[in-house]
Amino acid sequence: MNERRVSDHPVPRGYRKSATIYDVAQLAGVSPSTVSRALNMSGRVSAKTERLVKVAAATLQFRFNPRARSLQTGRTGTFALILSDITNPVYFDLVRGAERVAACEGYALILAESQESAENESNAAAGLQSSVDGIILVASRLGDARIRELAQRKPLVVVNRQVDAVSGVVPNVRTGIRHALDHLAAIGHRRLAFLSGPTNSWMSELRWNTLIVEAPARGMSIVEIGPGAPTLEGGRQSLCRVRAAGVTAVIAYNDLMAIGLLQASHEARISVPADLSILGFDDIFGSNFTTPALTTIRSPFHEVGTVAVQQLIMEIEHQRYQVDHAIDTQFIERESTAPPNRHHSSDGIGTL
Amino acid sequence: MNERRVSDHPVPRGYRKSATIYDVAQLAGVSPSTVSRALNMSGRVSAKTERLVKVAAATLQFRFNPRARSLQTGRTGTFALILSDITNPVYFDLVRGAERVAACEGYALILAESQESAENESNAAAGLQSSVDGIILVASRLGDARIRELAQRKPLVVVNRQVDAVSGVVPNVRTGIRHALDHLAAIGHRRLAFLSGPTNSWMSELRWNTLIVEAPARGMSIVEIGPGAPTLEGGRQSLCRVRAAGVTAVIAYNDLMAIGLLQASHEARISVPADLSILGFDDIFGSNFTTPALTTIRSPFHEVGTVAVQQLIMEIEHQRYQVDHAIDTQFIERESTAPPNRHHSSDGIGTL
Repeated sequence: MNERRVSDHPVPRGYRKSATIYDVAQLAGVSPSTVSRALNMSGRVSAKTERLVKVAAATLQFRFNPRARSLQTGRTGTFALILSDITNPVYFDLVRGAERVAACEGYALILAESQESAENESNAAAGLQSSVDGIILVASRLGDARIRELAQRKPLVVVNRQVDAVSGVVPNVRTGIRHALDHLAAIGHRRLAFLSGPTNSWMSELRWNTLIVEAPARGMSIVEIGPGAPTLEGGRQSLCRVRAAGVTAVIAYNDLMAIGLLQASHEARISVPADLSILGFDDIFGSNFTTPALTTIRSPFHEVGTVAVQQLIMEIEHQRYQVDHAIDTQFIERESTAPPNRHHSSDGIGTL
Repeated sequence: MNERRVSDHPVPRGYRKSATIYDVAQLAGVSPSTVSRALNMSGRVSAKTERLVKVAAATLQFRFNPRARSLQTGRTGTFALILSDITNPVYFDLVRGAERVAACEGYALILAESQESAENESNAAAGLQSSVDGIILVASRLGDARIRELAQRKPLVVVNRQVDAVSGVVPNVRTGIRHALDHLAAIGHRRLAFLSGPTNSWMSELRWNTLIVEAPARGMSIVEIGPGAPTLEGGRQSLCRVRAAGVTAVIAYNDLMAIGLLQASHEARISVPADLSILGFDDIFGSNFTTPALTTIRSPFHEVGTVAVQQLIMEIEHQRYQVDHAIDTQFIERESTAPPNRHHSSDGIGTL
């Protein structure tokens, strides 16, 4: 037994023989994940529980260390998060959520990017496979067969994608859309447009396919304007077609397009929301910076990241495979929606 | 020699004996980093060079793999990026820049966060040390001595921090501030305010200390309003003191505060920039979403992330230690600054 004070050494000697998180959990009478939370994230458990766990850990000279798993189980205590495009703002929150729960559960997170290339993604997954305990693929560009092949070698979870026989986490687009449409119908909108994203966007298709069912069910017509670039500029360029369409409210494929349309409307002296209501999708960072602040349908990517990591850990540690998770989207009402202007509500801003 | 086609296997057998990136570089007559770029990031080198490198790689049956280094040199091909706060938007670009250059140079990036705790940071660095080739500490909360101690064991680079005998990358705040003040002086501003951030912010102090020298040198007075929370709300709360101060332009410690002040001004019917010019710092994602779009002093965090990784690789692969890098900040003129309103330019919006 090493008698030195644990706190004197970043990595205590004799570590292999020291207490595990399970010993601490047993002594404290709590679950291992509570031990992890109490020792890693102050404030996430009650003060009493935190104290109890810390006393138990001190008694056993336990020191939390991500490498512990590796030494004891042959695992690396590491997993990889592979994104298709690290510059896409919708993934900021996903990375944050994943990093926080990884740290909390004692795993190190390797971040990699495929830059939208299936070949890069396949190489990254294959290259990292031997040095991680599992892989999360976000918006994968790989074929289903290749994903299943990877999943047979190491625990794997897909995000924003559904693959048979592989665990997946996707936002449930229907909940947020229904609330948004209920709101638009209640304040008097009857004619809507959807600014669609790129032609090959699975997510844009999904949103449009949901809108085209749910809007008529509430007595509203809806037209598609697009396809367009999923950027500020893509949104700006749609203004001419939006004016021509004679609608009172526009739902954009994503927040960037909505904000671009909002800026172009402002420059054209079309008042938002008095003359035109605008809604986005995702609730990206900064969507509340606009004037008026953007009403949007939030994709809960922080929670998506959290759940993806938790599912991966269930696969790694408890062999619970092939679970699908749908995370509800949420309608966020801010200031860019209002009842349509009475003077031209019958045919929208086209009459301005 | 293994005769199977390389492309049939994610990790080719007989890998240890296969060609290195240096062999490919020699055959193609280019640098190893060009090989890395040509094979990993299509479009980053000329089509001709890319083809040349690919032919050389195919000839030698070379396949790029981050693990190669580990097999050949005992290195892990991995480094850790430890942030104080992963939710701080100024670090989005830094993570992106670091990830891209890491991928390009064949390293995997482990992302970790200390949540502003020196203890968490010290534990993360110590825990990861044995499984990475080097560490980057961003806005470290550790003491200089502890940082030097870590740097003695593994290559280490600090970002937004200066520590004797340790390589560092910091934005050079003076360049951007000088351009911004030249601009404000040229369009007729004479009385400025600085919205300062939290009391213990090293970066807020640095910006204020630079402004207090550079503004008077251009015939402008400057007062400090603060300290304030570095958030939208912190900026909003400053409006009352800004009005009382009788200034025509405000420079906020960061973009979030500037945007908060802009929103509060809008609600109080103070026209920006006609009645009040507002400038931010950092150019975070979304700072162009506001109306008017925010004029700001950009902290080039994408480049900071890139340079930090490049310096770390110089330490790992070429033992070039203790190099300091200063990356120029940049004045970004958008729409939130204009000549002061003549009717009350002598004493600012206080007279409204």
